[in-house]
Amino acid sequence: MSHLVPPILRAAPELDVVLHDARSPCDAEVAVCWNPPAGALASLPKLRLVHSIAAGVDNILSDPALPAVPLCRVVDPQHARGMSEFVTWGVLHYHRQLDRVMANQRLERWFRHDQRDPSGCSVGIMGLGEIGSRVATDLQRLGFTVRGWARNTRELPGVATYAGPQGFRPFLQGTDILVCLLPLTDETRWILNAATFEHLPPGAKLIHVGRGEHLVHLDLITALTSGQIGGAIVDVFPAEPLPAGDALWRAPNLIVTPHMASVASSETIGMQVAHNARLLTRGEPLQNVVDVSRGY
Amino acid sequence: MSHLVPPILRAAPELDVVLHDARSPCDAEVAVCWNPPAGALASLPKLRLVHSIAAGVDNILSDPALPAVPLCRVVDPQHARGMSEFVTWGVLHYHRQLDRVMANQRLERWFRHDQRDPSGCSVGIMGLGEIGSRVATDLQRLGFTVRGWARNTRELPGVATYAGPQGFRPFLQGTDILVCLLPLTDETRWILNAATFEHLPPGAKLIHVGRGEHLVHLDLITALTSGQIGGAIVDVFPAEPLPAGDALWRAPNLIVTPHMASVASSETIGMQVAHNARLLTRGEPLQNVVDVSRGY
Repeated sequence: MSHLVPPILRAAPELDVVLHDARSPCDAEVAVCWNPPAGALASLPKLRLVHSIAAGVDNILSDPALPAVPLCRVVDPQHARGMSEFVTWGVLHYHRQLDRVMANQRLERWFRHDQRDPSGCSVGIMGLGEIGSRVATDLQRLGFTVRGWARNTRELPGVATYAGPQGFRPFLQGTDILVCLLPLTDETRWILNAATFEHLPPGAKLIHVGRGEHLVHLDLITALTSGQIGGAIVDVFPAEPLPAGDALWRAPNLIVTPHMASVASSETIGMQVAHNARLLTRGEPLQNVVDVSRGY
Repeated sequence: MSHLVPPILRAAPELDVVLHDARSPCDAEVAVCWNPPAGALASLPKLRLVHSIAAGVDNILSDPALPAVPLCRVVDPQHARGMSEFVTWGVLHYHRQLDRVMANQRLERWFRHDQRDPSGCSVGIMGLGEIGSRVATDLQRLGFTVRGWARNTRELPGVATYAGPQGFRPFLQGTDILVCLLPLTDETRWILNAATFEHLPPGAKLIHVGRGEHLVHLDLITALTSGQIGGAIVDVFPAEPLPAGDALWRAPNLIVTPHMASVASSETIGMQVAHNARLLTRGEPLQNVVDVSRGY
């Protein structure tokens, strides 16, 4: 985390920033972390705020001894743009059938697929927060038909939205390309499984940029092998880096990417952490506070 | 061409449409064609208009016996969108380094490249007509820095434009991803050659969606092998389909696509041909007339 110290101090030079290794005592009031060892936060007697350096906070919420102080996350507009770039690339890759074209090249085979109008391609986005909304807007601008699913009902212009468990199946049934941008919670863990894949139209595609623990690997490999899933891009894994030799590397019609869809810049993380530290000092409302009961 | 008869008649039922094989006599006043045999158009005694079914007319202009009647082409807004989808996919593929990520997957190798801001990536578009302008606008909206080169000076908002032979080298020197959307003329034939590649920054990428005769294949293979060109997508070839066994299929860091970047729909072609036939009958100005001296 040492790379974050200069950006935090540039944004708020009055702060006292220390690197904490969770073994020595520490008077910190704000803990900045991503994947802290269980119990490490509970060992900070003066803690008033836990600040994630990312959008997802599941690595922090999984600590059974997490202190009952506010938890904030980074919400980076550049992060949403990076994610949207990656998803747009993936959607165009499948919409224009570059997966099949690149497979044909390996066979030195010339075959022109029909060109389809993007309005006939339905992209289904799981997760309609800051990032999901941005991705939806960008894909609509390119002419795609976008639908979305979230825990609670959301309104997005021009997007057919579905909510909760009862909306999940109708959402899946009309989705040609499924994009997972969900936070990891008890309700979303392992949500990308055989039952989910079976409700998609045969040959649907998957772009998974949520969390590793959303996806049941064996179910995906089975669905890719049968053709129920026609192709997938998976960017996140329960254990990273994905080890050499893992079956996913060579699964049919699967693109493995190294958790690269989007990474927030140190500058942005530093500014948001510093800003919330100042708000805390002044007793003002914090920004991007996580609802711990929801998990995001 | 028989698939075009119904759309033409739907758009203008009063027309008399025949399929002409260039051997039997024909009274046609309008010839609708893509790649007519040399001399075939000159054999039509009543010819008043030659109408291409595509945006490019080089296959027609190459006829030494081309009659001195107006030549029109199809300018299809959906065609520009299809082209923009394809170029956007290619630009994102290189900007987000999916070429390297996909190569790493074959080695089961996890490696995260730095994420770069799209404003730091300069896309250079050769050809600033209807399609080039649309591509420029779409790439700017995604945050890329766009520059353009054309035969004559063009103004496009936010695009640094260069014109003519004297502008070509400065245009190339600041281009990270080169996109060829030029028409084929005597001046642009074989323009994608070793000298052009040498003026690009080392490792620049090429997306070639112009015409087959723009590109010197051997020079591209040499530049890909040396790394001067870091990757290329080639969609058009002098002879199509590209035959199995051609060296391009297996050139390093080259994606071969089957002239798929964009194909105008039969409905659009039929409507534009029918509309110009009516304008001709009424003696009104035709649309999308080719300047034969320019070649597009």
